Amino acid sequence: MANTSIILRVELDHDKVTFGDVAAAISKSGGDITSIDVIRPGKDSSVRDITVEVVDTEEDNVVESLRKHDGIKLINVSDRTFLVHLGGKIKIQPTLPIKNRDDLSRVYTPGVAKVCTAIHENPDKAYSLTIKRNTVAVVSDGTAVLGLGDVGPYAAAPVMEGKAMLFKQLAGVDAFPICLDTRDTEEIIRTIKAMSPIFGGINLEDISSPRCFEIEKRLSEELEIPVFHDDQHGTAVVVIAGLLNALKVVNKRIENIRVVVNGIGAAGVSICKMLLSAGVTRLVPVDRDGAIVRGGSYSHPMWQWLADQPQVEATEGSLKEVIKGADVFIGVSRGNLLNGEDIRGMGPDPIVFAMANPVPEVSPEEALPHARVYATGRSDYPNQINNVLVFPGLFRGALDCRARCINEPMKLAAARAIASVVSGGELNELYIIPSIFNDQVVAEVRKAVVQAAILTGVARRIPKDFR
Amino acid sequence: MANTSIILRVELDHDKVTFGDVAAAISKSGGDITSIDVIRPGKDSSVRDITVEVVDTEEDNVVESLRKHDGIKLINVSDRTFLVHLGGKIKIQPTLPIKNRDDLSRVYTPGVAKVCTAIHENPDKAYSLTIKRNTVAVVSDGTAVLGLGDVGPYAAAPVMEGKAMLFKQLAGVDAFPICLDTRDTEEIIRTIKAMSPIFGGINLEDISSPRCFEIEKRLSEELEIPVFHDDQHGTAVVVIAGLLNALKVVNKRIENIRVVVNGIGAAGVSICKMLLSAGVTRLVPVDRDGAIVRGGSYSHPMWQWLADQPQVEATEGSLKEVIKGADVFIGVSRGNLLNGEDIRGMGPDPIVFAMANPVPEVSPEEALPHARVYATGRSDYPNQINNVLVFPGLFRGALDCRARCINEPMKLAAARAIASVVSGGELNELYIIPSIFNDQVVAEVRKAVVQAAILTGVARRIPKDFR
Repeated sequence: MANTSIILRVELDHDKVTFGDVAAAISKSGGDITSIDVIRPGKDSSVRDITVEVVDTEEDNVVESLRKHDGIKLINVSDRTFLVHLGGKIKIQPTLPIKNRDDLSRVYTPGVAKVCTAIHENPDKAYSLTIKRNTVAVVSDGTAVLGLGDVGPYAAAPVMEGKAMLFKQLAGVDAFPICLDTRDTEEIIRTIKAMSPIFGGINLEDISSPRCFEIEKRLSEELEIPVFHDDQHGTAVVVIAGLLNALKVVNKRIENIRVVVNGIGAAGVSICKMLLSAGVTRLVPVDRDGAIVRGGSYSHPMWQWLADQPQVEATEGSLKEVIKGADVFIGVSRGNLLNGEDIRGMGPDPIVFAMANPVPEVSPEEALPHARVYATGRSDYPNQINNVLVFPGLFRGALDCRARCINEPMKLAAARAIASVVSGGELNELYIIPSIFNDQVVAEVRKAVVQAAILTGVARRIPKDFR
Repeated sequence: MANTSIILRVELDHDKVTFGDVAAAISKSGGDITSIDVIRPGKDSSVRDITVEVVDTEEDNVVESLRKHDGIKLINVSDRTFLVHLGGKIKIQPTLPIKNRDDLSRVYTPGVAKVCTAIHENPDKAYSLTIKRNTVAVVSDGTAVLGLGDVGPYAAAPVMEGKAMLFKQLAGVDAFPICLDTRDTEEIIRTIKAMSPIFGGINLEDISSPRCFEIEKRLSEELEIPVFHDDQHGTAVVVIAGLLNALKVVNKRIENIRVVVNGIGAAGVSICKMLLSAGVTRLVPVDRDGAIVRGGSYSHPMWQWLADQPQVEATEGSLKEVIKGADVFIGVSRGNLLNGEDIRGMGPDPIVFAMANPVPEVSPEEALPHARVYATGRSDYPNQINNVLVFPGLFRGALDCRARCINEPMKLAAARAIASVVSGGELNELYIIPSIFNDQVVAEVRKAVVQAAILTGVARRIPKDFR
């Protein structure tokens, strides 16, 4: 239930209506006028642009109320969300102007030839003499875009462009959107490998499960630059960050808690893996058929991997059965699977991360009377688990130290860094996760990631501030 | 023989040398001091940055002369060409800042979802709501970079970035470099098709012959966006532009001339095709084995195509034989193939385009006493045949009218537009081609290309100034 902002261009027939009538019609139908611009004044009639804030679902009501009103001619309805998208959301900017033939001969032929030769003799120089050192591809095949699903590569572009904006604004990373017109796993792997030379990193995005696992795994093995599927690991990193702080609030140790993770897809698998890396000893992964149990046999290779882990419980059961007595519930599944009774049946001081989008696994109304800490993926409740906290700083760090990959210790370090931005004095049930506009986040994540990369031997360069 | 600019950081021992000694050493070894900055003054010694213009080949002499000089310590040599390349030559710029949660929810989740949905319902909207409408991929596999040859995708990047700069500065086109780590024809075609959704056009660059023909042909057939191999057609368009003006200078009609084209590779084939489109009736294509003759049998499919054209001459012979009596020589081959005698043996008022790089097929010293019009690919002689005159305006026009392709009439229109920028009063032997810094060029090429696209039915949108 997001708000949207629409701009209504109307012509008023002064014999029939006053502006007061218009304002009344708008507010009666659920809109809130935020500004008015007179486009053409006039004695008999006038044209105005009226900007109206309205809840998404009420947009049509407002428009209809004016359309039906006598004396009001609705000329145009513009949605501010669409307006900011006109022509796309990123541009290419040269680093310097070419003012004369001298400039031209340096950045292009003939002078550029010796730069090409230098890179040909030593390909590592691509990192100093081309955009590679600061450039990331944001790659999607459009098969799992937001909550929309398989909308294809053209419709995926606005998300990838938005991500490129965030990369630049938050972390100074130049990111370029690549939307792939293929959904064949091997073809995607080949395509990304083929186009990789200009990029210093690959951010995979909105690729459906289970193909995303194979694509990320193979690219990580076969490329010498970091590859990161944000839907898997971005979410996992910020969940772990939130969990570390939530555990401080309820005063429990990660070694002692029992955690139920519901929805073992792209994000769920990565969350389970990170929980184990972080020290969880009692894990209950749950999918549609109920708990994935230790010793079980599964066709999905990631489920089988979980069933082989000693920390995974061996008890079968449905979600509603296994959640009984759990310390932590983490949902990356579907809306309204649980109610207040289920939360009440958890252990003392339950921690509930209900991240299904847009409707959480359990609503705040049901959960809050019983949960000690409640978090969702939504911006209109407290404790938003948002992976915008992760990818900018993570790639900033990985690029700065020319990491060969993004490994588990780097992700865990990022999670701890995000958690650390909320100080002990600030920490409470409603504030376990910092705001994405807190600029400490990128700086701390970067530092932690670089440190972890150096310690694990995957850094190929020591940034100045680490020497 | 391009000039380069180097910055020498030197420490002078004042007991042993004066700045006058340094200046003398630099100029004696072939350098020209253009500026001096004192970095650290001092009584006994001082550190200075001396910027020196020097011919490429003399760079080492200048550096050596200082290195050997007593009392001068050479701290560092920076080449300005390398300095402008540090970190690459283009950046990504968001079109607007994300100042708060409201902004975020418009450009990213949750608001962006309705933009995705709109494109999913009508993929044409990608042209209005994403960067597609103004974005071109500059794609190379690094197999035929400048005169360097097969230096690979990493070393090709500086050229592609330089091209992206020119696209933006000259025509406002957002171009992004893609360097492919494969040289397999089918793999290149598949990769470019797979990544095409975000792009409004594909500029192929520095891909070796004969693969470039198949790659361009197939992509043009299989994609609904313009595909243009600059090395083939960019050169051809500007050659035709120059030829049209040169023919005015010598007062000959294109229908009556006999043209020898030497070097039937990527550019040569496209030049031959455009000459035929432009009305040439007597064409002699020549490669290493001599003239390609009408009725002959050739394994190279493009040579066979030429041999099947009625305008191609049937007379066999070496370059030196067939050039006798020709009105026009166009070379896109190797240096120093012809001498003054060969030019003297051409028809009256010979036109010579000797575009081999960096050494022309015939030097100005040999050619100029006999040729009426002489042009090369070099910037240090008059009449530079430079395809920077073509691609910015050509893609500007193609994008503005959402052309499905770039066809022969569009290329011919671009050539005529470039020629038209040199007015009748300005036109002479030494000025048949406008400067790339003449901003009329892009405007005229765009206009001509849009017109031709509309007339040939490949435009999917009529730009405002054409309605």
